[in-house]
Amino acid sequence: MKISKFQKLIEEIYFNKDSKRGREATFIWLSEEIGELARAIRHSEEAKLKEEFADVLAWLASLASLYGIDLEKEVAAKYGKGCPKCHRSPCECLE
Amino acid sequence: MKISKFQKLIEEIYFNKDSKRGREATFIWLSEEIGELARAIRHSEEAKLKEEFADVLAWLASLASLYGIDLEKEVAAKYGKGCPKCHRSPCECLE
Repeated sequence: MKISKFQKLIEEIYFNKDSKRGREATFIWLSEEIGELARAIRHSEEAKLKEEFADVLAWLASLASLYGIDLEKEVAAKYGKGCPKCHRSPCECLE
Repeated sequence: MKISKFQKLIEEIYFNKDSKRGREATFIWLSEEIGELARAIRHSEEAKLKEEFADVLAWLASLASLYGIDLEKEVAAKYGKGCPKCHRSPCECLE
């Protein structure tokens, strides 16, 4: 599935709801999902871990839509030609 | 660009480096990117905002790879048929 298609799918499911909730509140939901991902990592819950990765991506896509940002376009622009800092793949940055 | 292709692209750039850094340390990098996204939101920096959304997705993909998780597969499984709670699109959950 294309990133853009996934973002549209999430818009179809949640855009109206998230628009009413607002950008700041939706950022808090994304943060909560990051917390749930941390918990699944800490507890080594494999099934939960898969779901939490999916949830973080879904909320990230939803928040991006509230800002009118095309995730696919932005990741292609920043990472499409290797590391954005050293311009190599694999990355050769010191840090 | 497909989600799976993006995850592979990020693996090509960062997998070796992130493997050496380790899962927990890579989670901290992801969290740092969430913080940078928060700052870009707070300062209403549009160009920075686009980059930070891209960075969060890149680090999420990289961390998923360290756990052997296929992001595309997991988001399709969880969100491919609408809201995973009410099974509708648009979502009709009360919360």
